[in-house]
Amino acid sequence: MTEPLQPPFHTIQWDGGLDGTLLLLDQRKLPAEVRFLPCRTVEDVMEAIRTLAVRGAPAIGIAAAFGICIGLSQAKPASIPQALTAIEDAAVRLASSRPTAVNLFWALERMEKAARRFAEQNPTSDVRDFRRHLLQEARSILQEDIETCRAIGEHGWTLIPDGGGVLTHCNAGALATAGIGTALGILYTARRYGKEFTVYVDETRPLLQGARLTAWELSQFGIRPTLICDNMAASLMKAGKISAVLVGADRIAANGDTANKIGTLGLSILAAHFQIPFYVAAPTSTFDLSIPSGQFIPIEHRSPDEVCSFRNLRIAPPDAEGYNPAFDVTDAERISAVITEKGILRPPLEKAIRQMLGTK
Amino acid sequence: MTEPLQPPFHTIQWDGGLDGTLLLLDQRKLPAEVRFLPCRTVEDVMEAIRTLAVRGAPAIGIAAAFGICIGLSQAKPASIPQALTAIEDAAVRLASSRPTAVNLFWALERMEKAARRFAEQNPTSDVRDFRRHLLQEARSILQEDIETCRAIGEHGWTLIPDGGGVLTHCNAGALATAGIGTALGILYTARRYGKEFTVYVDETRPLLQGARLTAWELSQFGIRPTLICDNMAASLMKAGKISAVLVGADRIAANGDTANKIGTLGLSILAAHFQIPFYVAAPTSTFDLSIPSGQFIPIEHRSPDEVCSFRNLRIAPPDAEGYNPAFDVTDAERISAVITEKGILRPPLEKAIRQMLGTK
Repeated sequence: MTEPLQPPFHTIQWDGGLDGTLLLLDQRKLPAEVRFLPCRTVEDVMEAIRTLAVRGAPAIGIAAAFGICIGLSQAKPASIPQALTAIEDAAVRLASSRPTAVNLFWALERMEKAARRFAEQNPTSDVRDFRRHLLQEARSILQEDIETCRAIGEHGWTLIPDGGGVLTHCNAGALATAGIGTALGILYTARRYGKEFTVYVDETRPLLQGARLTAWELSQFGIRPTLICDNMAASLMKAGKISAVLVGADRIAANGDTANKIGTLGLSILAAHFQIPFYVAAPTSTFDLSIPSGQFIPIEHRSPDEVCSFRNLRIAPPDAEGYNPAFDVTDAERISAVITEKGILRPPLEKAIRQMLGTK
Repeated sequence: MTEPLQPPFHTIQWDGGLDGTLLLLDQRKLPAEVRFLPCRTVEDVMEAIRTLAVRGAPAIGIAAAFGICIGLSQAKPASIPQALTAIEDAAVRLASSRPTAVNLFWALERMEKAARRFAEQNPTSDVRDFRRHLLQEARSILQEDIETCRAIGEHGWTLIPDGGGVLTHCNAGALATAGIGTALGILYTARRYGKEFTVYVDETRPLLQGARLTAWELSQFGIRPTLICDNMAASLMKAGKISAVLVGADRIAANGDTANKIGTLGLSILAAHFQIPFYVAAPTSTFDLSIPSGQFIPIEHRSPDEVCSFRNLRIAPPDAEGYNPAFDVTDAERISAVITEKGILRPPLEKAIRQMLGTK
């Protein structure tokens, strides 16, 4: 048995004990600089999420969980009731940082639930014990994400065609998780098991997560990426260069409709047109069973400047308007499979989701 | 009767007489700088075409026609046979500058044909008369393009939906012609006749002709552009914001298959999926009846650096490869109409093309 796959860098680390620091691999600087951003206040964490220093649904959730611990560290509560209030305050603020990825809300809810349960079961315990418990919960979320990524890779790698090309969009890799990633974790696992394939990377405008992050990350894992502009996918598919499309997800509704980085919807339509399988990889924490379908997923709209500029260089004339939805929703009917840590969901997705996660 | 629509700038001008200079609005500098590039040698013209200082199928053809005159100016032939040789030399070189847009070859052929006919009919004429005749031919190509654009606008404007959104890709406007443009000329004409609509502009990576050129040009014509990234089109279509897609063309085969800027194929598939009409606007000089279908259109592949960089700023890690087809081919079956200066071609396009242009 070989060693489990490890990412060659740490996207999210907790440095220290109860009053420690959250260290985030600053994704605004990549690939030019590999720099870690220390977060010591809830505001730091919110700013890191808002400005995409940390991004990717699982990573946002983990960062938010540690954000709760940082909130406690800042509030210095004298009692458990005070600590519960501090957690609630921090959670409300962190929840406002980005609206689409549900893992953020899932992680905050899990931390709040852990806090309430501990408080109920240990009403007379020391506040430091309470805080230790919550730090441990955040550490568990991180550790479980590492294992989830591994499991997604193990479940998904057989879907990867040998000898063909795989197209991915945005970054659903180690930079979006604490582990080897979701979509990209499947590719690393497939490589480890001997599959050969070309990875085509959509540059993913406006913020170029494909060109800057996925291409860098693939290189770090020893895979040479082939970068394309987002508008080239149809041409590659028509030329027979793409055997599968594999992306991550920010939120999956009960019927399987999937919000992901803007551009994913178009890829799913093109893949269906060219009869190419379209796969989504995501942990079960990305499913939102509280909403029946994708039309209820809130879509973040970001600043038009991101579209009218390219890394702070204005590309459009001054009076051009920009339209900048950060996500779109892919209809469940065009998803060939969703790979989770619990196994592969196959169409009809609504039924498969209910069967696998109905009791979640 | 109102004045005919005029572009508020000159994309291509001939300055002077027989030994004049070709002045090109340098599209590498827009929108930051409005600067004219003087071309005084065939090499200057080739370089301008190759580096996209001048681009757009009709504009490339016009530039090449004047390139022949410049070749004569450089060669200073003492006789008509020497002049014919100089023309052939210049034509061979100019033809090598870019492979996809057929207007380049069409214009060179027209200049060569005019030269041969004049030489046959006036075997004893003065070389300067011969050169004057060819300069007049190039001027005619430019003047006819202005009229062609106007006619395309007059034929096409009724297709533009009132009150909706029109999506365009790359630049098929005044910057791609000597007149008001093809696709964009239709929009200017529709505006003049009182139609209201939003123009959504695909930024058109890698070289951002949409963000840099179309957005600038629309502003010059008094239309405020709304810029989007190429990967946002599906999201806008799903949201009901797009009532028509309207693009130009670089080469149209006998069956209606249309080569145009990379990304056009994907738009045509998305438009069909969302049942949105997909229109192509092009002069008849863009049709290549010598090839039966799009698979025979040579597709230019440009430097991977265009994909891996953005305006000389590297965006991808050093070892990333880039794949950079400059054009793709849209299947005739997904084109709702082709608007030419002679009228509107409707499906089945192969038959319509044969009827309108069979005797071309």
